Amino acid sequence: MLAAPSIQKLLDELERLPGVGPKSAQRIAYWILNTDRATALRLAEAIAEVKDTVSFCSCCNNYAQDDLCDICASPSRNHNLICVVSEPRDIPPIERTAVFDGVYHVLGGALAPMDGIGPDDLNIADLMKRLASARVEEVVLATNPNVEGETTAAYLARLIKPLGVKVTRLASGLPVGGDLEFADEVTLGRALEARRPL
Amino acid sequence: MLAAPSIQKLLDELERLPGVGPKSAQRIAYWILNTDRATALRLAEAIAEVKDTVSFCSCCNNYAQDDLCDICASPSRNHNLICVVSEPRDIPPIERTAVFDGVYHVLGGALAPMDGIGPDDLNIADLMKRLASARVEEVVLATNPNVEGETTAAYLARLIKPLGVKVTRLASGLPVGGDLEFADEVTLGRALEARRPL
Repeated sequence: MLAAPSIQKLLDELERLPGVGPKSAQRIAYWILNTDRATALRLAEAIAEVKDTVSFCSCCNNYAQDDLCDICASPSRNHNLICVVSEPRDIPPIERTAVFDGVYHVLGGALAPMDGIGPDDLNIADLMKRLASARVEEVVLATNPNVEGETTAAYLARLIKPLGVKVTRLASGLPVGGDLEFADEVTLGRALEARRPL
Repeated sequence: MLAAPSIQKLLDELERLPGVGPKSAQRIAYWILNTDRATALRLAEAIAEVKDTVSFCSCCNNYAQDDLCDICASPSRNHNLICVVSEPRDIPPIERTAVFDGVYHVLGGALAPMDGIGPDDLNIADLMKRLASARVEEVVLATNPNVEGETTAAYLARLIKPLGVKVTRLASGLPVGGDLEFADEVTLGRALEARRPL
């Protein structure tokens, strides 16, 4: 018997979290035991509140506390520029760049025929409806640069181009601050193909 | 604006946890958003329950759900053998060895004169009371093998030995599976001093 039942229960629940193994679960559990009651309960309440108040944006399918997410509801964003991402978690990194002022569309995954995930399993119909009803000028395909993401981007490009909407894809190339020496050949090949005049 | 307010609140609380930085907080938050309501609430409730039900064992000062912790309450443990540790978190690793069948005493820290932590700040008086009232045969000093832990062990040994109780210390030496080449000289020196006939 390594721990009191309620400590064991907490350990079990913590170990479910992504990136939290038995050792980090124990570290977190002892931190929770050690910390003052109010701090621990704030965490518990934040978890419950997020499940109670957050659902999906009716426009872009991002997480949202109201009918529309903050980005779709914002009049200062360019609603004629849509960035298509696989998951809601892909939006914060793009927002942090401060380079993009358009809106988003969350597919809820990527095409993966081997796993039985086809176009009907993604929010593609909703995207096409948005493109039909608004004067969208450009769709940026920001799915991941892996097999599923590239397949999804190619599929969407074929679907959207006939509508006369400009379709773009995130550039592939060397990561800024990276080292030529350690770049894989596919990335380096893409960087060469997409070389720019200076 | 990177996230809805309740998601931001959850991120803030998660980042307080030990070993959880902004990236892991985001990974965990999206996992919580993605997972079913029941699983997320089980974690929230486990946190609240641990704060509501766990206090300190009146005998050894370990975390306990009742007046006594499971170990102090167990008749199958050897109550004449006390292992002294700094923190409750030091008990599970010792229990996992399955080598120790005695009971524990948690000091709640280690002597650190530089940080103003003296004997009166630790549960040393309680330990001396336990030694006076029970027929304890051996005290194993299992404070950490660092400056504070060694100081604490030396202090306790001087205090306990006059009572005629056997005082022992965890062995220092090479970690099992370790490499001589990479051992620091203090550890290797201790391993040499404590060499054993085969």
